[in-house]
Amino acid sequence: MSSQFDPRDPDYESRVTQSFAEQAIMRTIGASLAAVKPGRVEIVLPYDSSLTQQDGFLHAGVSAIIMDSACGYAAFSLMPVDARVLTIEFKINLLAPAAGNRFRAVGKVRKPGRSVTVAEAELIAENDDEHDGEPRLIATMSATLMAITP
Amino acid sequence: MSSQFDPRDPDYESRVTQSFAEQAIMRTIGASLAAVKPGRVEIVLPYDSSLTQQDGFLHAGVSAIIMDSACGYAAFSLMPVDARVLTIEFKINLLAPAAGNRFRAVGKVRKPGRSVTVAEAELIAENDDEHDGEPRLIATMSATLMAITP
Amino acid sequence: MSSQFDPRDPDYESRVTQSFAEQAIMRTIGASLAAVKPGRVEIVLPYDSSLTQQDGFLHAGVSAIIMDSACGYAAFSLMPVDARVLTIEFKINLLAPAAGNRFRAVGKVRKPGRSVTVAEAELIAENDDEHDGEPRLIATMSATLMAITP
Amino acid sequence: MSSQFDPRDPDYESRVTQSFAEQAIMRTIGASLAAVKPGRVEIVLPYDSSLTQQDGFLHAGVSAIIMDSACGYAAFSLMPVDARVLTIEFKINLLAPAAGNRFRAVGKVRKPGRSVTVAEAELIAENDDEHDGEPRLIATMSATLMAITP
Repeated sequence: MSSQFDPRDPDYESRVTQSFAEQAIMRTIGASLAAVKPGRVEIVLPYDSSLTQQDGFLHAGVSAIIMDSACGYAAFSLMPVDARVLTIEFKINLLAPAAGNRFRAVGKVRKPGRSVTVAEAELIAENDDEHDGEPRLIATMSATLMAITP
Repeated sequence: MSSQFDPRDPDYESRVTQSFAEQAIMRTIGASLAAVKPGRVEIVLPYDSSLTQQDGFLHAGVSAIIMDSACGYAAFSLMPVDARVLTIEFKINLLAPAAGNRFRAVGKVRKPGRSVTVAEAELIAENDDEHDGEPRLIATMSATLMAITP
Repeated sequence: MSSQFDPRDPDYESRVTQSFAEQAIMRTIGASLAAVKPGRVEIVLPYDSSLTQQDGFLHAGVSAIIMDSACGYAAFSLMPVDARVLTIEFKINLLAPAAGNRFRAVGKVRKPGRSVTVAEAELIAENDDEHDGEPRLIATMSATLMAITP
Repeated sequence: MSSQFDPRDPDYESRVTQSFAEQAIMRTIGASLAAVKPGRVEIVLPYDSSLTQQDGFLHAGVSAIIMDSACGYAAFSLMPVDARVLTIEFKINLLAPAAGNRFRAVGKVRKPGRSVTVAEAELIAENDDEHDGEPRLIATMSATLMAITP
């Protein structure tokens, strides 16, 4: 349960939780914060047919929403109390069709920095009924985040 | 108005339009197809406060939704009639906060191929009132798409 | 010939030229600076069999050397006199085998910034004898650069 | 020592070794193959002042050479005997200046596929004298490779 990173703000969890609650898009798609550790954040999104592309799979951009925020909040959790976080760039590799009952984006800081942080995320598809298969890696992200301080 | 690319399917436009209509996520966020040329597709999304991140800007993943589909349909417009299109990967650089009345994703094929196509997209923020500023480039994408043929 | 960018340092060209001369790798592979404008830099590399991968084409990493430096110096040309430039990340799409007599990396700033600059590069393969074909786009890069100021 | 991947060609190691020997660029920069497992390849490059950028660090494109080939051969090790491997795209995040006595690129397949394989690489800087510091992660790559079969 311990982390390799020490948060500069002991209240990092409430800071992340509060900022996440301000992301209106998360309510719109039905995503929620599932875990917040120093440098590691999980976001879960149940499958919904309103979020799909033409073949009924989760749209890659919807995957990007929760992976980007998982990376962003993983980075944010290590930033000082007065910092804001900004995504500079991200890249996604899509490994398999996004089919499943729910999708878990696990974001982890790879390299924290005073101004620039590099984070990575995995997107895992999960099923309610294990006859439908085990959790499966369906996408990866690498992202660069920036701390904006006053 | 002419294009550097010749579509293999003369009915490319209706094929793109029909597939776009099957992307439920586009109705969910309010995006529509604005232009379809061989190797070039535009998607427009009006700003809505339900699509935002913590600072009230369009969430980067929502930008990814329309840029990914603009690239995908630009590639799809050049594919044979029985092909499906699949995104393999994309990268986004975020150049400016996504503020504006509407967002236009312009996707263009950079290199078509029998199996692999490379496309690029620009995301332009537009304002109703030009006192709010001219159209502004706020993000770029490069993407790799694959044709799946029977 | 005019540029859309105004350099902060009128001596940008000699600053770029001098820094390029300090990149030992450029002498090792035989690359030279071909053009320096505000926000736009070209680097040319003659083909040499010592730079190839297993099929006799230029190795993708060698393409990366000249595209990365073309982006980096395009960014550097717009930075203040006391800044150093650092590449944060880049992505390359390989569009065609790197065959030709020489390779021209054209780097252009897409969005300059006080701390973060986004640049893009194209890699063009050229032939001495035009019977061998016209200049051909073989790779693209998007890169994020950072200005380090004292 | 066991791997999560089963090679289709039991002679994968000699196939990788032979192809690597045909990459002239590896002799030019002094890189060698350090380990070949199914889906996992390591390439080592000693520091040399002829490979540097303007501050005396290894040029990012040189890092790209060994990381790209580590990814490529990790993918190649799992391909059928008559396949060739082609890099479609890669992205690099640079985490720290490339200082050290030698650089180890560790490439691993993330998702093998009949035609498309996704691989990742880490670049580790190592020192002869441990007073100079422990092995350090200085860059990461994600790459898409393609199998070309007759």
